[in-house]
Amino acid sequence: MIKTIGFDADDTLWHNETIFVATHGRLCELLSVYHDADKVDATLNATEHRNLARYGYGIKSFALSAIETAIELSDAQVSAEEIRRIIALAHDMLDHPVEILDGVPETVSSLAGDYHLIVITKGDLRDQSRKYQLSDLDPHFAELEVVTEKDPDTYARILQRHRVNPAEFLMVGNSIKSDILPVLDIGGHAAHVPYQHTWVLDKTDRQPGGPRYHALDSIADLPGLLHRLAS
Amino acid sequence: MIKTIGFDADDTLWHNETIFVATHGRLCELLSVYHDADKVDATLNATEHRNLARYGYGIKSFALSAIETAIELSDAQVSAEEIRRIIALAHDMLDHPVEILDGVPETVSSLAGDYHLIVITKGDLRDQSRKYQLSDLDPHFAELEVVTEKDPDTYARILQRHRVNPAEFLMVGNSIKSDILPVLDIGGHAAHVPYQHTWVLDKTDRQPGGPRYHALDSIADLPGLLHRLAS
Repeated sequence: MIKTIGFDADDTLWHNETIFVATHGRLCELLSVYHDADKVDATLNATEHRNLARYGYGIKSFALSAIETAIELSDAQVSAEEIRRIIALAHDMLDHPVEILDGVPETVSSLAGDYHLIVITKGDLRDQSRKYQLSDLDPHFAELEVVTEKDPDTYARILQRHRVNPAEFLMVGNSIKSDILPVLDIGGHAAHVPYQHTWVLDKTDRQPGGPRYHALDSIADLPGLLHRLAS
Repeated sequence: MIKTIGFDADDTLWHNETIFVATHGRLCELLSVYHDADKVDATLNATEHRNLARYGYGIKSFALSAIETAIELSDAQVSAEEIRRIIALAHDMLDHPVEILDGVPETVSSLAGDYHLIVITKGDLRDQSRKYQLSDLDPHFAELEVVTEKDPDTYARILQRHRVNPAEFLMVGNSIKSDILPVLDIGGHAAHVPYQHTWVLDKTDRQPGGPRYHALDSIADLPGLLHRLAS
Protein backbone atom coordinates (compact mmCIF):
# COMPACT_ATOMS: atom_id res chain seq x y z
CA MET A 1 0.00 0.00 0.00
CA ILE A 2 2.75 2.48 0.96
CA LYS A 3 5.24 2.81 -1.91
CA THR A 4 7.16 6.02 -1.10
CA ILE A 5 8.50 7.13 2.28
CA GLY A 6 9.56 10.70 3.00
CA PHE A 7 12.00 11.26 5.86
CA ASP A 8 12.46 14.53 7.66
CA ALA A 9 16.18 15.15 8.27
CA ASP A 10 16.94 17.35 11.33
CA ASP A 11 16.05 15.48 14.55
CA THR A 12 14.69 12.52 12.55
CA LEU A 13 17.81 11.21 10.76
CA TRP A 14 20.42 13.20 12.71
CA HIS A 15 20.72 15.42 15.77
CA ASN A 16 20.07 19.13 15.22
CA GLU A 17 18.06 20.81 17.96
CA THR A 18 20.51 19.59 20.65
CA ILE A 19 23.23 21.58 18.83
CA PHE A 20 21.02 24.68 18.77
CA VAL A 21 20.13 24.23 22.45
CA ALA A 22 23.81 23.97 23.38
CA THR A 23 24.61 27.07 21.29
CA HIS A 24 21.74 28.99 22.93
CA GLY A 25 23.39 28.16 26.25
CA ARG A 26 26.76 29.46 25.08
CA LEU A 27 25.14 32.63 23.75
CA CYS A 28 23.30 33.20 27.06
CA GLU A 29 26.63 32.86 28.86
CA LEU A 30 28.31 35.30 26.46
CA LEU A 31 25.53 37.86 26.96
CA SER A 32 25.11 37.25 30.71
CA VAL A 33 26.96 40.53 31.42
CA TYR A 34 23.96 42.33 29.87
CA HIS A 35 20.93 40.18 30.83
CA ASP A 36 19.98 36.86 32.39
CA ALA A 37 19.44 33.71 30.31
CA ASP A 38 15.63 33.94 30.28
CA LYS A 39 15.72 37.44 28.84
CA VAL A 40 18.36 36.47 26.23
CA ASP A 41 16.37 33.40 25.16
CA ALA A 42 13.09 35.30 24.95
CA THR A 43 14.65 38.15 22.93
CA LEU A 44 16.44 35.74 20.60
CA ASN A 45 13.22 33.79 19.97
CA ALA A 46 11.34 37.02 19.24
CA THR A 47 14.10 38.22 16.90
CA GLU A 48 14.18 34.89 15.03
CA HIS A 49 10.40 34.94 14.72
CA ARG A 50 10.43 38.51 13.37
CA ASN A 51 13.18 37.65 10.85
CA LEU A 52 11.75 34.31 9.70
CA ALA A 53 9.98 35.57 6.56
CA ARG A 54 13.06 37.57 5.56
CA TYR A 55 15.79 35.05 6.44
CA GLY A 56 14.19 31.62 6.26
CA TYR A 57 15.54 28.76 8.40
CA GLY A 58 19.09 27.76 9.18
CA ILE A 59 22.30 28.59 10.98
CA LYS A 60 23.17 31.78 9.04
CA SER A 61 19.72 33.14 9.90
CA PHE A 62 20.28 32.19 13.54
CA ALA A 63 23.68 33.94 13.53
CA LEU A 64 22.30 37.20 12.14
CA SER A 65 19.41 37.14 14.63
CA ALA A 66 21.83 36.40 17.49
CA ILE A 67 23.99 39.42 16.54
CA GLU A 68 20.88 41.60 16.34
CA THR A 69 19.80 40.29 19.77
CA ALA A 70 23.22 41.09 21.26
CA ILE A 71 23.09 44.66 19.94
CA GLU A 72 19.56 45.13 21.27
CA LEU A 73 20.15 43.60 24.72
CA SER A 74 23.40 45.54 25.25
CA ASP A 75 21.85 48.88 24.21
CA ALA A 76 24.43 48.89 21.39
CA GLN A 77 27.31 48.43 23.85
CA VAL A 78 28.28 44.91 22.70
CA SER A 79 31.91 44.85 21.55
CA ALA A 80 33.29 43.75 18.19
CA GLU A 81 35.13 40.98 20.06
CA GLU A 82 31.81 39.68 21.44
CA ILE A 83 30.26 39.79 17.94
CA ARG A 84 33.26 37.84 16.69
CA ARG A 85 32.55 35.18 19.30
CA ILE A 86 28.92 34.93 18.15
CA ILE A 87 30.12 34.39 14.57
CA ALA A 88 32.51 31.72 15.90
CA LEU A 89 29.53 29.95 17.54
CA ALA A 90 27.82 29.86 14.13
CA HIS A 91 30.98 28.51 12.48
CA ASP A 92 31.11 25.75 15.10
CA MET A 93 27.54 24.79 14.24
CA LEU A 94 28.20 24.88 10.48
CA ASP A 95 31.27 22.67 10.94
CA HIS A 96 29.64 20.33 13.46
CA PRO A 97 29.93 16.63 12.64
CA VAL A 98 26.72 14.89 11.58
CA GLU A 99 25.46 12.70 14.43
CA ILE A 100 23.10 10.05 13.13
CA LEU A 101 20.25 9.08 15.48
CA ASP A 102 20.05 5.58 16.95
CA GLY A 103 18.43 3.00 14.72
CA VAL A 104 18.48 5.15 11.59
CA PRO A 105 21.12 3.40 9.42
CA GLU A 106 19.62 -0.09 9.94
CA THR A 107 16.06 1.13 9.38
CA VAL A 108 16.83 3.15 6.26
CA SER A 109 18.95 0.44 4.66
CA SER A 110 16.37 -2.27 5.40
CA LEU A 111 13.62 -0.23 3.70
CA ALA A 112 15.63 0.98 0.70
CA GLY A 113 15.09 -2.20 -1.32
CA ASP A 114 11.30 -2.22 -1.00
CA TYR A 115 10.36 1.46 -0.99
CA HIS A 116 11.16 4.68 -2.84
CA LEU A 117 12.85 6.82 -0.16
CA ILE A 118 13.24 10.60 -0.25
CA VAL A 119 14.45 13.16 2.28
CA ILE A 120 12.23 16.23 2.68
CA THR A 121 13.67 18.95 4.89
CA LYS A 122 13.30 22.65 5.35
CA GLY A 123 16.31 24.79 6.07
CA ASP A 124 19.38 26.12 4.39
CA LEU A 125 20.27 24.46 1.09
CA ARG A 126 24.02 24.51 1.65
CA ASP A 127 23.87 23.23 5.19
CA GLN A 128 21.33 20.48 4.52
CA SER A 129 23.22 19.30 1.42
CA ARG A 130 26.41 19.12 3.45
CA LYS A 131 24.79 17.03 6.21
CA TYR A 132 23.10 14.76 3.64
CA GLN A 133 26.44 14.03 1.98
CA LEU A 134 28.28 13.51 5.28
CA SER A 135 25.54 11.25 6.67
CA ASP A 136 26.51 8.28 4.46
CA LEU A 137 22.77 7.70 4.15
CA ASP A 138 22.46 9.35 0.71
CA PRO A 139 22.95 6.14 -1.34
CA HIS A 140 19.65 4.86 0.11
CA PHE A 141 17.63 7.89 -0.99
CA ALA A 142 16.39 8.76 -4.47
CA GLU A 143 16.39 12.49 -3.77
CA LEU A 144 17.03 15.26 -1.25
CA GLU A 145 14.28 17.90 -1.32
CA VAL A 146 15.17 21.08 0.59
CA VAL A 147 12.12 23.35 0.83
CA THR A 148 11.47 26.80 2.26
CA GLU A 149 8.36 25.76 4.20
CA LYS A 150 6.66 22.44 4.94
CA ASP A 151 3.02 23.21 4.19
CA PRO A 152 0.38 21.12 2.34
CA ASP A 153 1.13 22.86 -1.00
CA THR A 154 4.82 22.00 -0.74
CA TYR A 155 4.12 18.32 -0.04
CA ALA A 156 1.55 18.20 -2.87
CA ARG A 157 4.08 19.67 -5.29
CA ILE A 158 6.79 17.19 -4.28
CA LEU A 159 4.47 14.19 -4.59
CA GLN A 160 3.30 15.41 -7.99
CA ARG A 161 6.88 15.75 -9.19
CA HIS A 162 7.68 12.21 -8.02
CA ARG A 163 4.36 10.95 -9.47
CA VAL A 164 3.31 9.64 -6.06
CA ASN A 165 -0.30 9.17 -4.96
CA PRO A 166 -0.72 10.68 -1.45
CA ALA A 167 -2.54 7.53 -0.28
CA GLU A 168 0.65 5.56 -1.09
CA PHE A 169 2.94 8.04 0.73
CA LEU A 170 4.17 7.95 4.33
CA MET A 171 6.06 10.85 5.91
CA VAL A 172 8.26 10.19 8.94
CA GLY A 173 9.37 13.00 11.22
CA ASN A 174 9.63 14.53 14.67
CA SER A 175 7.63 17.69 14.04
CA ILE A 176 3.84 17.51 14.38
CA LYS A 177 3.61 20.93 12.72
CA SER A 178 5.92 20.33 9.76
CA ASP A 179 6.03 16.59 9.15
CA ILE A 180 2.65 15.25 10.27
CA LEU A 181 -0.27 17.70 9.96
CA PRO A 182 0.37 18.98 6.40
CA VAL A 183 0.81 15.41 5.10
CA LEU A 184 -2.41 14.23 6.76
CA ASP A 185 -4.10 17.31 5.25
CA ILE A 186 -3.32 16.19 1.69
CA GLY A 187 -4.39 12.56 2.26
CA GLY A 188 -1.06 10.98 3.08
CA HIS A 189 0.11 8.82 5.97
CA ALA A 190 2.37 10.28 8.65
CA ALA A 191 4.44 8.61 11.37
CA HIS A 192 5.58 10.71 14.32
CA VAL A 193 8.87 9.79 15.99
CA PRO A 194 9.44 12.13 18.95
CA TYR A 195 12.73 13.94 19.59
CA GLN A 196 13.96 15.21 22.95
CA HIS A 197 13.69 18.92 22.00
CA THR A 198 11.27 20.89 19.84
CA TRP A 199 12.20 24.37 18.61
CA VAL A 200 9.75 26.94 19.95
CA LEU A 201 8.95 28.16 16.41
CA ASP A 202 8.10 24.59 15.38
CA LYS A 203 5.48 23.98 18.05
CA THR A 204 1.74 23.75 17.40
CA ASP A 205 -1.43 23.32 19.44
CA ARG A 206 -3.16 21.22 16.78
CA GLN A 207 -3.28 17.49 17.53
CA PRO A 208 -3.04 14.92 14.75
CA GLY A 209 -5.41 11.96 14.56
CA GLY A 210 -7.30 9.57 12.28
CA PRO A 211 -6.39 6.26 10.68
CA ARG A 212 -3.52 7.70 8.62
CA TYR A 213 -1.69 9.03 11.70
CA HIS A 214 0.79 6.73 13.40
CA ALA A 215 2.62 7.48 16.65
CA LEU A 216 5.89 5.57 17.02
CA ASP A 217 8.30 5.41 19.95
CA SER A 218 11.34 4.97 17.74
CA ILE A 219 12.31 4.95 14.06
CA ALA A 220 13.14 1.26 14.56
CA ASP A 221 9.36 0.65 14.77
CA LEU A 222 8.90 1.81 11.16
CA PRO A 223 9.33 -1.58 9.41
CA GLY A 224 6.71 -3.08 11.77
CA LEU A 225 4.26 -0.27 10.97
CA LEU A 226 4.77 -0.77 7.24
CA HIS A 227 4.22 -4.49 7.65
CA ARG A 228 0.91 -3.86 9.46
CA LEU A 229 -0.21 -1.31 6.83
CA ALA A 230 0.53 -3.79 4.03
CA SER A 231 -1.47 -6.63 5.57
CA MET B 1 16.25 19.81 -31.79
CA ILE B 2 16.28 21.81 -28.53
CA LYS B 3 13.34 20.76 -26.32
CA THR B 4 14.26 22.10 -22.86
CA ILE B 5 15.72 25.50 -22.00
CA GLY B 6 17.34 26.24 -18.65
CA PHE B 7 17.50 29.88 -17.55
CA ASP B 8 19.92 31.23 -15.02
CA ALA B 9 18.12 33.70 -12.72
CA ASP B 10 20.40 36.38 -11.19
CA ASP B 11 21.61 38.79 -13.89
CA THR B 12 19.88 36.76 -16.60
CA LEU B 13 16.17 37.12 -15.69
CA TRP B 14 16.53 39.93 -13.12
CA HIS B 15 19.13 42.37 -11.80
CA ASN B 16 21.30 41.10 -8.95
CA GLU B 17 24.96 42.09 -9.19
CA THR B 18 24.04 45.78 -9.54
CA ILE B 19 22.41 45.54 -6.11
CA PHE B 20 25.55 43.91 -4.64
CA VAL B 21 27.78 46.52 -6.30
CA ALA B 22 25.66 49.33 -4.82
CA THR B 23 25.78 47.68 -1.38
CA HIS B 24 29.57 47.23 -1.63
CA GLY B 25 29.73 50.99 -2.21
CA ARG B 26 27.60 51.71 0.87
CA LEU B 27 29.74 49.33 2.94
CA CYS B 28 32.96 51.00 1.75
CA GLU B 29 31.49 54.36 2.78
CA LEU B 30 30.49 53.00 6.19
CA LEU B 31 33.99 51.59 6.77
CA SER B 32 35.86 54.55 5.21
CA VAL B 33 36.81 55.74 8.73
CA TYR B 34 38.97 52.60 9.01
CA HIS B 35 40.29 52.00 5.46
CA ASP B 36 39.89 53.17 1.87
CA ALA B 37 37.46 51.53 -0.55
CA ASP B 38 40.07 49.39 -2.31
CA LYS B 39 41.20 47.82 0.96
CA VAL B 40 37.59 47.22 2.09
CA ASP B 41 36.67 45.62 -1.24
CA ALA B 42 39.76 43.41 -1.30
CA THR B 43 39.25 42.26 2.30
CA LEU B 44 35.55 41.60 1.73
CA ASN B 45 36.29 39.54 -1.39
CA ALA B 46 38.93 37.54 0.48
CA THR B 47 36.56 36.96 3.41
CA GLU B 48 33.72 35.84 1.09
CA HIS B 49 36.09 33.52 -0.74
CA ARG B 50 37.31 32.00 2.54
CA ASN B 51 33.74 31.51 3.79
CA LEU B 52 32.26 30.17 0.55
CA ALA B 53 32.51 26.46 1.37
CA ARG B 54 31.06 27.08 4.83
CA TYR B 55 28.32 29.60 3.97
CA GLY B 56 27.41 28.99 0.35
CA TYR B 57 26.06 31.83 -1.81
CA GLY B 58 23.56 34.54 -1.00
CA ILE B 59 22.83 37.69 0.95
CA LYS B 60 23.00 36.17 4.46
CA SER B 61 26.47 34.84 3.63
CA PHE B 62 27.45 38.27 2.34
CA ALA B 63 26.16 39.91 5.53
CA LEU B 64 28.14 37.63 7.83
CA SER B 65 31.30 38.11 5.74
CA ALA B 66 30.77 41.90 5.75
CA ILE B 67 30.50 41.92 9.57
CA GLU B 68 33.65 39.80 9.83
CA THR B 69 35.41 42.22 7.42
CA ALA B 70 34.36 45.23 9.51
CA ILE B 71 35.73 43.63 12.69
CA GLU B 72 39.00 42.74 10.97
CA LEU B 73 39.54 46.11 9.26
CA SER B 74 38.73 48.09 12.41
CA ASP B 75 41.03 46.00 14.62
CA ALA B 76 37.89 45.05 16.57
CA GLN B 77 37.01 48.71 17.12
CA VAL B 78 33.86 48.72 14.97
CA SER B 79 30.84 49.76 17.04
CA ALA B 80 27.58 47.87 17.59
CA GLU B 81 25.81 50.74 15.82
CA GLU B 82 28.00 50.24 12.74
CA ILE B 83 27.29 46.46 12.80
CA ARG B 84 23.59 47.30 13.02
CA ARG B 85 23.94 49.39 9.86
CA ILE B 86 25.62 46.47 8.03
CA ILE B 87 22.69 44.24 9.00
CA ALA B 88 20.34 46.98 7.73
CA LEU B 89 22.18 46.92 4.37
CA ALA B 90 21.50 43.17 4.17
CA HIS B 91 17.83 43.69 5.03
CA ASP B 92 17.57 46.26 2.23
CA MET B 93 18.96 43.70 -0.21
CA LEU B 94 16.65 40.95 1.05
CA ASP B 95 13.65 43.27 0.69
CA HIS B 96 14.75 44.74 -2.64
CA PRO B 97 12.09 44.66 -5.38
CA VAL B 98 12.72 42.24 -8.23
CA GLU B 99 13.83 44.17 -11.32
CA ILE B 100 13.27 42.12 -14.45
CA LEU B 101 15.82 42.63 -17.23
CA ASP B 102 14.79 44.16 -20.56
CA GLY B 103 13.28 41.73 -23.04
CA VAL B 104 12.83 38.90 -20.52
CA PRO B 105 9.01 38.76 -20.13
CA GLU B 106 8.36 38.80 -23.91
CA THR B 107 11.09 36.24 -24.62
CA VAL B 108 10.08 33.83 -21.87
CA SER B 109 6.36 33.99 -22.65
CA SER B 110 6.96 33.51 -26.39
CA LEU B 111 9.02 30.35 -25.75
CA ALA B 112 6.81 28.83 -23.05
CA GLY B 113 4.39 27.24 -25.52
CA ASP B 114 7.02 25.43 -27.57
CA TYR B 115 9.68 24.48 -25.01
CA HIS B 116 9.97 23.00 -21.52
CA LEU B 117 11.42 25.89 -19.48
CA ILE B 118 13.19 25.57 -16.12
CA VAL B 119 15.09 28.02 -13.93
CA ILE B 120 18.44 26.77 -12.63
CA THR B 121 20.11 29.05 -10.11
CA LYS B 122 22.63 28.80 -7.35
CA GLY B 123 22.18 30.79 -4.18
CA ASP B 124 20.02 30.91 -1.14
CA LEU B 125 16.82 28.86 -1.32
CA ARG B 126 14.66 31.37 0.54
CA ASP B 127 15.88 34.39 -1.38
CA GLN B 128 15.72 32.77 -4.83
CA SER B 129 12.23 31.37 -4.14
CA ARG B 130 11.06 34.83 -3.10
CA LYS B 131 12.41 36.47 -6.26
CA TYR B 132 10.96 33.70 -8.45
CA GLN B 133 7.50 34.23 -6.97
CA LEU B 134 7.70 38.03 -7.17
CA SER B 135 8.99 37.96 -10.76
CA ASP B 136 5.57 37.01 -12.23
CA LEU B 137 7.57 34.78 -14.56
CA ASP B 138 6.92 31.58 -12.61
CA PRO B 139 3.77 30.51 -14.56
CA HIS B 140 5.97 30.06 -17.64
CA PHE B 141 8.41 27.69 -15.93
CA ALA B 142 7.94 24.02 -15.10
CA GLU B 143 10.34 24.15 -12.17
CA LEU B 144 12.72 26.25 -10.09
CA GLU B 145 15.94 24.38 -9.32
CA VAL B 146 18.08 26.05 -6.64
CA VAL B 147 21.45 24.33 -6.38
CA THR B 148 24.52 24.74 -4.17
CA GLU B 149 27.00 24.78 -7.06
CA LYS B 150 26.69 24.86 -10.85
CA ASP B 151 29.10 22.15 -11.94
CA PRO B 152 28.77 19.44 -14.61
CA ASP B 153 27.50 16.87 -12.05
CA THR B 154 24.74 19.20 -10.92
CA TYR B 155 23.54 19.83 -14.47
CA ALA B 156 23.72 16.10 -15.28
CA ARG B 157 21.61 15.31 -12.21
CA ILE B 158 18.96 17.92 -13.08
CA LEU B 159 18.72 16.75 -16.71
CA GLN B 160 18.40 13.15 -15.55
CA ARG B 161 15.61 14.08 -13.17
CA HIS B 162 13.75 15.91 -15.94
CA ARG B 163 14.50 13.03 -18.38
CA VAL B 164 16.23 15.45 -20.75
CA ASN B 165 18.92 14.44 -23.25
CA PRO B 166 21.83 16.93 -22.99
CA ALA B 167 21.90 17.31 -26.80
CA GLU B 168 18.31 18.61 -26.60
CA PHE B 169 19.08 21.07 -23.78
CA LEU B 170 20.08 24.73 -24.00
CA MET B 171 21.23 26.73 -20.97
CA VAL B 172 20.98 30.53 -21.05
CA GLY B 173 22.96 32.70 -18.66
CA ASN B 174 25.39 35.51 -18.02
CA SER B 175 28.12 33.50 -16.29
CA ILE B 176 30.70 31.74 -18.47
CA LYS B 177 31.87 29.83 -15.39
CA SER B 178 28.49 28.70 -14.04
CA ASP B 179 26.05 28.70 -16.96
CA ILE B 180 28.14 27.96 -20.05
CA LEU B 181 31.25 25.81 -19.46
CA PRO B 182 29.70 23.05 -17.28
CA VAL B 183 26.78 22.64 -19.72
CA LEU B 184 29.12 22.40 -22.73
CA ASP B 185 31.14 19.86 -20.71
CA ILE B 186 28.17 17.47 -20.47
CA GLY B 187 27.20 17.78 -24.13
CA GLY B 188 24.54 20.48 -23.92
CA HIS B 189 24.08 23.77 -25.74
CA ALA B 190 24.77 27.05 -23.96
CA ALA B 191 23.88 30.64 -24.87
CA HIS B 192 25.79 33.45 -23.20
CA VAL B 193 23.97 36.75 -22.63
CA PRO B 194 26.40 39.23 -21.03
CA TYR B 195 25.55 41.35 -17.99
CA GLN B 196 27.15 44.66 -17.04
CA HIS B 197 28.87 43.27 -13.91
CA THR B 198 30.45 39.91 -13.03
CA TRP B 199 31.09 38.98 -9.40
CA VAL B 200 34.82 38.46 -8.84
CA LEU B 201 34.20 34.94 -7.47
CA ASP B 202 32.27 34.04 -10.63
CA LYS B 203 35.04 34.90 -13.08
CA THR B 204 37.05 32.34 -15.05
CA ASP B 205 39.95 32.37 -17.49
CA ARG B 206 38.58 29.47 -19.54
CA GLN B 207 37.01 30.47 -22.87
CA PRO B 208 33.99 28.60 -24.26
CA GLY B 209 33.86 27.50 -27.87
CA GLY B 210 32.62 24.87 -30.33
CA PRO B 211 29.38 24.44 -32.24
CA ARG B 212 27.21 24.13 -29.12
CA TYR B 213 28.32 27.51 -27.75
CA HIS B 214 26.28 30.57 -28.76
CA ALA B 215 27.17 34.18 -27.91
CA LEU B 216 24.15 36.48 -27.88
CA ASP B 217 23.99 40.25 -27.41
CA SER B 218 20.60 40.13 -25.72
CA ILE B 219 18.06 37.63 -24.44
CA ALA B 220 15.74 38.92 -27.18
CA ASP B 221 18.00 37.11 -29.67
CA LEU B 222 17.09 33.73 -28.15
CA PRO B 223 14.05 32.91 -30.36
CA GLY B 224 16.17 33.63 -33.46
CA LEU B 225 18.92 31.28 -32.22
CA LEU B 226 16.39 28.52 -31.54
CA HIS B 227 14.93 29.02 -35.02
CA ARG B 228 18.37 28.62 -36.58
CA LEU B 229 19.16 25.53 -34.48
CA ALA B 230 15.86 23.91 -35.52
CA SER B 231 16.38 24.44 -39.26
